[in-house]
Amino acid sequence: MAGCGDSTLESLRHAPLTCVLHALALGRTTSTALTQACLDAIGRDRALNAWTWIDAEGALGAARASDARRAQGQPLGRLDGVPLAIKDNVDVAAMPTSLGLGAREVAPAPRDAVIVDRLRGAGAVLLGKTNCDEAVLGTVGRNPTFGDVGNPVHSGRAAGGSSAGSAAAVAAGHAIAAIGTDTMGSVRIPAAFCGLVGLKPTFGEFSIVGVAPALRRADAVGLIVRAVEDAGLLLPLLAGPDGLQGNAWQLHLPFAPPDWAPGQLRAGVVGDLAELGAEPSVVAAFSAAMALASPAFGAVQPVALDLAPLQVAQTRRAALLLMEAEILAAHGDEVAHGSPRLRGLLDYARRKTAVDYARADRLLDLHVTRIRRLFERIDVLLLPTVPTRPPLLGTDEPANLADFTALASLAGCPALSLPLPGGIGLQLVGAPRSDLRLLELGEILQAMIDAPAE
Amino acid sequence: MAGCGDSTLESLRHAPLTCVLHALALGRTTSTALTQACLDAIGRDRALNAWTWIDAEGALGAARASDARRAQGQPLGRLDGVPLAIKDNVDVAAMPTSLGLGAREVAPAPRDAVIVDRLRGAGAVLLGKTNCDEAVLGTVGRNPTFGDVGNPVHSGRAAGGSSAGSAAAVAAGHAIAAIGTDTMGSVRIPAAFCGLVGLKPTFGEFSIVGVAPALRRADAVGLIVRAVEDAGLLLPLLAGPDGLQGNAWQLHLPFAPPDWAPGQLRAGVVGDLAELGAEPSVVAAFSAAMALASPAFGAVQPVALDLAPLQVAQTRRAALLLMEAEILAAHGDEVAHGSPRLRGLLDYARRKTAVDYARADRLLDLHVTRIRRLFERIDVLLLPTVPTRPPLLGTDEPANLADFTALASLAGCPALSLPLPGGIGLQLVGAPRSDLRLLELGEILQAMIDAPAE
Repeated sequence: MAGCGDSTLESLRHAPLTCVLHALALGRTTSTALTQACLDAIGRDRALNAWTWIDAEGALGAARASDARRAQGQPLGRLDGVPLAIKDNVDVAAMPTSLGLGAREVAPAPRDAVIVDRLRGAGAVLLGKTNCDEAVLGTVGRNPTFGDVGNPVHSGRAAGGSSAGSAAAVAAGHAIAAIGTDTMGSVRIPAAFCGLVGLKPTFGEFSIVGVAPALRRADAVGLIVRAVEDAGLLLPLLAGPDGLQGNAWQLHLPFAPPDWAPGQLRAGVVGDLAELGAEPSVVAAFSAAMALASPAFGAVQPVALDLAPLQVAQTRRAALLLMEAEILAAHGDEVAHGSPRLRGLLDYARRKTAVDYARADRLLDLHVTRIRRLFERIDVLLLPTVPTRPPLLGTDEPANLADFTALASLAGCPALSLPLPGGIGLQLVGAPRSDLRLLELGEILQAMIDAPAE
Repeated sequence: MAGCGDSTLESLRHAPLTCVLHALALGRTTSTALTQACLDAIGRDRALNAWTWIDAEGALGAARASDARRAQGQPLGRLDGVPLAIKDNVDVAAMPTSLGLGAREVAPAPRDAVIVDRLRGAGAVLLGKTNCDEAVLGTVGRNPTFGDVGNPVHSGRAAGGSSAGSAAAVAAGHAIAAIGTDTMGSVRIPAAFCGLVGLKPTFGEFSIVGVAPALRRADAVGLIVRAVEDAGLLLPLLAGPDGLQGNAWQLHLPFAPPDWAPGQLRAGVVGDLAELGAEPSVVAAFSAAMALASPAFGAVQPVALDLAPLQVAQTRRAALLLMEAEILAAHGDEVAHGSPRLRGLLDYARRKTAVDYARADRLLDLHVTRIRRLFERIDVLLLPTVPTRPPLLGTDEPANLADFTALASLAGCPALSLPLPGGIGLQLVGAPRSDLRLLELGEILQAMIDAPAE
C-alpha cells in the first residue's frame, strides 16, 4: 500500500490510516511523535484556515497515554494513538462547538457526540475542531470568522465545503483522517476537491446525537480519508444505533454483504452531465475514468441514465428551504449574529410559510421515490462528485456545487467519492445498506483508474 | 366465540370476522346473502351518515363471484366473500375519494390503494366508502357535506373520528370489518366510542400508497374490528412493504414474536389521567378494568407513570400545525372550498412561517425521544383511549380528544384499543414492531375484563 513502506514522520502523517496503524503497532513510530508532527504542521499551515480550535495539550496527553498502553501491549482499541480531526459542528467534550459561527460566546460542549465517543473509545487522539462554512450553509469552505479554507492540493483554490477544514487537514497531513458531516454533499465535495476519499454512509448508520442539526431528514456524519480501505476500517467501528435518536426507531441491521459478482453488477452511468451543469473538463475526466474502469463491469455493461427527470435544481431549492428553516429553528439566536450573506439566506426561510415548507417536504418525498426506482434497475449509480473543478478562492460560490451529491443524501443512500486528477471526484451511489458493496467496488475501481497505462 | 354459534344473517352481520369466515367456509351462509343483508342495513340506517359512497352493484357482483369460487372449493384468499368498509380517504378503484370534502368534482380513483389491493386480492367484497371528518381534520365524525356520523351504540352521541363512518358501519352491522386511517388516533377513538377493537400497527407496516396525505410522519392505515383475533387475522394479510413508499426505505422485518411471559411483562399504567384532562367516569372505568386485569401481570406489578413530562397539549398543537400545513400542501385546491371551520383551521398554517414548521417538527422529535425512553423501562403502556365518553352530537369538539392516542402515532408505536363499557377504550401501546405481543396481551386482558364476576 502507498506510504506503508516508509516510516518517517513526514511520510506517515500523509499516509493512509491502515499504514499508520501498522507503523504504530510495529513500534516504528509513537503516537506522541506523530501527534507532535501533526501539531507542528498545523502551526506551519495556519494560512489554510483549516482549524477553529486546537487542543495541543489534550492531544499530546492522549498520545502519551496511548504510547504507554502500546508499550504494555494493551492498546485501547483499533485506533489507538491515531491523530484525528473533528468538524466543528460535532460536539467534543470540553471544546466549544462553533458551527462555523463567530462573534458569540460558546460554552465548551459538556460531552462527546456519540460518534466522537466511539472514536475516543477506540483510542483515537483528538487534535481539535475543523473549520466549515458559516452555519454549515455552503459548499466552498467560506468563513468570515475563521477565514476561508484553502486547498492544500490545488493552491489558490477552495477546499470545498462545508467540511472544508476536515478535508484540508487530511490533505495537508495535519490529521490521518477526519470526521465531517454531509447533508447535501458536505463530505464528498471537499474530499473530491482535496484529492481524498469521502464516504457518506447509509442514513442513520452513524449516530448524529451531538451533531448540530441542519436538515434532520438528511443529516449524516461522514468520513474523509486517504484510501477506500481506511473507510472500510472505520465503518464497522463507528456504525450502529445509539439508542437515543428520536426521529426514527433505529434498527440494528447488518450491512448487505459485498455479494455482487463483478461481472454481473448493474451499473448506471449518468449521461446528461453537461445538461446538469458539469464543466467539459469534469465530463472528460469522468469519461476517461469510466473507460479505465469498464473492464470491472464484465459482461453487463453500464447503462446510461439521465438525471433530468429528478429535477435536480428544483429539488435543491426545496432542500435548502427546509435546511435554512431547520437551522433557524435549532440555532436561531446564534445565527442572528451571522454575516449579511448568512442572514440573507435565512431570511428567505423566514418569509416562507409553513405550507411552503410542507410543499417542499412533499417534493423531496417524490424525489426520494424517483431515486428508489432507479435502484430497482441498477446496483450502483456512477457520476462525478462535483460539476466543476475547485473554484478559485474568493470567487462566487457556484449554485450547483451540491447537485451531484444531494440526491444520495436525500434518499438516504450510501455514497463514496474517489479522487480523480484535478480535484474532481468519481462518485458511487448505492441502495441503502449497500455500504460494504460500495467500498469493495470502490477499491476495485480505484485500482483500475490508478493503474499505470501499459 | 361470541356469535359463532348462530348463523342467522342478522347475527352474522354483527359477528366477528373469524365467525363470518367460519360460516362462509361451512356454507352456512353465502357472501351474496350476507352482502345483501349489509346493503339492506345500510339502506335502513341512512340517518347514521356512515357512508359517502355505496357500490351495491359492484359488491353484489363480487359476492356472487366469491360464492362461485367457494362452490368450486377454490376461494381466492383468506377473506373471500367478506363485506368490508373503506374510509373515504383511501383510494378504491372506480370510486371517488372524497376525503370528506364536498362541493367539488372528484374523478373516480384510477386504482386501488395498496392496502385495498391486498384486501381485494384476498377476496374481500368492498361495499363502498365511509364518512369521516372534513379533510380528516377532526375527532368526532363531523361532516358538513355528508352529515355528522351517529353512534350506533350510544344513541345521540358522536361516533368519534376521523374514521367515524368506518366505526359506525362495523358497529351497526353494515360491514364485518373496516379500514380506517389513524394519524393521531383516528382509528382508536371511533373504535372506543363505538364499542369496537381498533388497531394502529407499527408505523410503516401497512402501506399508505393510495391514502390521502395528512401528516406523513405519522399517517397509518388501521383496522376497526369486533374482536382482537380479527385484527390478528388481518395483520399478516395486510402488512409488509409495498416497494413504493418514498419517505423511508422500507425494510421487511419480522414482527417481534409474542415472546413475553405473562408473569414477567413490564407494564406502565398512566397515573396522572385527571391532570391530563380525563373525565372522572373514564378514570373510574379504566381503574376498574386495570383491577380486573391485574392477575395477568403476575409477579411484576405494573408501575404508575406520569405523562406530564411528555407535554401532551403542546405536542398536539405542534402536530396539528404540521398536519394542517401538509393537508394544504397536498390538497390545497380542494380544501379551499371547505367549510368555514376547516378554512379557519388551515388559515392558521398559512399564517405560520417555515421556521415555525421546523420548530414544531423539532419539538415532535424530542417528544418521540421521550416516548422511546419510556419503552426502555416498560414493555407495554396502558391508558384509556379517550379522555371522555362520546360527546353528544352537535356539541363542541373537545380539544383534547386525541391526547391519549397521538403519542403512539407520533412515536410510530403499535396501539390497540379494547372496548370498555360506556364508549371508553382501554389502550395498549407497545414498542415498534411489538404488534403481535400487543394482540396477544390484548386477547388476555379482554378475556379477563369480560369474564363474569364470580
